[in-house]
Amino acid sequence: MGVTYEQAGALAWQWLEQIARVSETEDPESEGVTRLCATREHRAALDLLGGWMRDAGMTVRVDNGANLIGRYASADPDARTLIMGSHQDTVPHGGKYDGIMGVLLPLALVHYLNDHAIALPFHLDVVAFSDEEGTRFSSTLLGSKVLAGSFDPVMLGAEDDAGVTLRQALLDFGCDPERIADDRYPPGAALGFVEVHIEQGPQLEAEGLPIGVVSAITGIERHKLSIHGLAGHAGTVPMHLRQDALVGAARVIGLVDELCKTTDELVGVVGKIDNSPNGVNVIPQRTDLTVELRSPEDATRLAARNTLLARIEAALAALDLRLEHQLIYEQAAVQCAPALVAQLEAAVAANGVAPRTLFSGAGHDGLAMQALCDIGMLFLRCARGVSHHPDEAIEPDDLSVVVAVLASFCMALAESADQPVA
Amino acid sequence: MGVTYEQAGALAWQWLEQIARVSETEDPESEGVTRLCATREHRAALDLLGGWMRDAGMTVRVDNGANLIGRYASADPDARTLIMGSHQDTVPHGGKYDGIMGVLLPLALVHYLNDHAIALPFHLDVVAFSDEEGTRFSSTLLGSKVLAGSFDPVMLGAEDDAGVTLRQALLDFGCDPERIADDRYPPGAALGFVEVHIEQGPQLEAEGLPIGVVSAITGIERHKLSIHGLAGHAGTVPMHLRQDALVGAARVIGLVDELCKTTDELVGVVGKIDNSPNGVNVIPQRTDLTVELRSPEDATRLAARNTLLARIEAALAALDLRLEHQLIYEQAAVQCAPALVAQLEAAVAANGVAPRTLFSGAGHDGLAMQALCDIGMLFLRCARGVSHHPDEAIEPDDLSVVVAVLASFCMALAESADQPVA
Repeated sequence: MGVTYEQAGALAWQWLEQIARVSETEDPESEGVTRLCATREHRAALDLLGGWMRDAGMTVRVDNGANLIGRYASADPDARTLIMGSHQDTVPHGGKYDGIMGVLLPLALVHYLNDHAIALPFHLDVVAFSDEEGTRFSSTLLGSKVLAGSFDPVMLGAEDDAGVTLRQALLDFGCDPERIADDRYPPGAALGFVEVHIEQGPQLEAEGLPIGVVSAITGIERHKLSIHGLAGHAGTVPMHLRQDALVGAARVIGLVDELCKTTDELVGVVGKIDNSPNGVNVIPQRTDLTVELRSPEDATRLAARNTLLARIEAALAALDLRLEHQLIYEQAAVQCAPALVAQLEAAVAANGVAPRTLFSGAGHDGLAMQALCDIGMLFLRCARGVSHHPDEAIEPDDLSVVVAVLASFCMALAESADQPVA
Repeated sequence: MGVTYEQAGALAWQWLEQIARVSETEDPESEGVTRLCATREHRAALDLLGGWMRDAGMTVRVDNGANLIGRYASADPDARTLIMGSHQDTVPHGGKYDGIMGVLLPLALVHYLNDHAIALPFHLDVVAFSDEEGTRFSSTLLGSKVLAGSFDPVMLGAEDDAGVTLRQALLDFGCDPERIADDRYPPGAALGFVEVHIEQGPQLEAEGLPIGVVSAITGIERHKLSIHGLAGHAGTVPMHLRQDALVGAARVIGLVDELCKTTDELVGVVGKIDNSPNGVNVIPQRTDLTVELRSPEDATRLAARNTLLARIEAALAALDLRLEHQLIYEQAAVQCAPALVAQLEAAVAANGVAPRTLFSGAGHDGLAMQALCDIGMLFLRCARGVSHHPDEAIEPDDLSVVVAVLASFCMALAESADQPVA
């Protein structure tokens, strides 16, 4: 008979509980998980993962970027490779699922495949990326950039809080940082990259769906606005003569919120505000704030930016306020490959779940991997959308659904005559 | 012939320039004036003022609250007393006119009266209040409370930044703080209190008027609002599921501004805002802000408060945000005596200036003096409404206008059969 999807999902749950204790923190329930790149905890996590991979019939190696790569090999050594995986690292006091769940679910799939002696016409690599969050060296997507061939050696000089460079940390971890360039997948070798991740948002939970298919990873832009007014005595300057910077800032916040609430596939926030002189009885002189816009469609985001800036300029001019404006960050959206999206939707539907596509509002390893090959993603619902926090939570029963969907996806891909994901 | 109003005004200008150098700061032009209660600078200022008062034919004393009182005495020792004056102290790095100008202009008036040998049927006292700003001991209206009989001896225990109590500072100044209660004017002795002060607002300047008559000193209320939302990832939480505390705060700021701009004799401000966690990519969890409302009509202010709170509650409820609200300060408005307002308006008109009444948006010594007698105020225009700042500025020529108006006021009061300002 062999193992069932339910049993493979339950195994993934056990693995998740066990590896959550590989953390700088004492108690993952109350303090969350802290597991950073090229640390003792990283080593212990790879030891655990490597053992489970070997038990599932995989060959295991650690590359020079400290990525762990387990291979469920095809009989054909020249076959192409389907890559699955996610990151092993966390933010400080992060949750038990962000990242590592995307390593353990493909591993549970391989456990199922191996137990059922299912051979694939492609290699299936399961990767535990060394660093996606950028917590230790303030640089995101370290592991996936190594595999995609976009790692910039300048980054090797980045230092952690203790002054240890990334180069030294990798050397201490047993890697050869000078050979990182050799670790990229050869051109054309990769069939595609599929990542499973918690949603980090509340949509799937709200709709009662265990999983969703990601259509794109959001583009992001951030602006810094400084609104200049004129300070004055809050009792003696008549209302019609005021140039109150905070009143202008309030208009900006309202305009951002209104535009995002009335535009499809656009979210935005004013997250940060600093007011000066910030006295109870002083008319604000200057208010600084940030505006962030995100959309899976760059055209949507750019149109929103233009609309928003025009509205802001008009509103501030009407209030006799002066605007200083700077675009401080911009990252284009990355589309998931339509063929992969369709195949993942079909695999979801084949397992009795209504296919729901949604875009990812957060960044993921796919941002780097898309330079190498097509990417696809599955989101798993998480409680109240909470992530990067000890309260991060999932439904254990959802894990077997993902294993089943990944199995359906692989089997369909194996059966398709012309593996269209190239 | 005797001195002219122009000459008296020019003398006041010289005095203002001279006494501005009695300051903790080196250069009053760039650093402003810092002259605090019961300090070496206070003593030096009283020495200067006392000398000028004696030169103008006044008797001079310092009371136990460190007030300097010069008397231009009536021939009738039992006559009642018209009190004029303002405060000698400043905020740190304050201007050259706020307060002290209201001492020197009545003194210039007495200089004129004395030079012309004009006798009055009432005593005219010119007071340099020791402390109105509350800079040193964090308690406002110290001097005027002593004269009005409302000084609370508990205040004697207040300490300055160096730990010196008000009691000790007064003792060191040569006062007997235990006898402060004896310094109030006897019941019925005061005819009224008239203060001249810079406007600290831009209205007179905007209308091309050198002076205005104050109708009332504003009432003030201050509120602390805490708006509670739910933090979240600014990329992954859909707009319609957000509880963004800062979006709520922006609505509050807009509501305050809108209500004050559409309500006569009401001003208000959100001067202070603190947002948390205040990260560029985090939905704000909690935003604290202050709301201040001021009106010369308490009924206007109270009605505005109720309207505003109802609108705020409705707006925040619609955004699924929770409000915590606290009234942290409230001070009722004080009306200037209608008879004094009318007499000051007549004196203004008699000198060829269109009478303009306006309310004071800031607090003044009259707040305390109204417990003793009727109060009236004249405002002098100041450049761009700036005060409490080294850039505080006036038109020198305006000073003679005030001297002429005060002279007309005193003469009319002297001629009136039944001195109606009791």
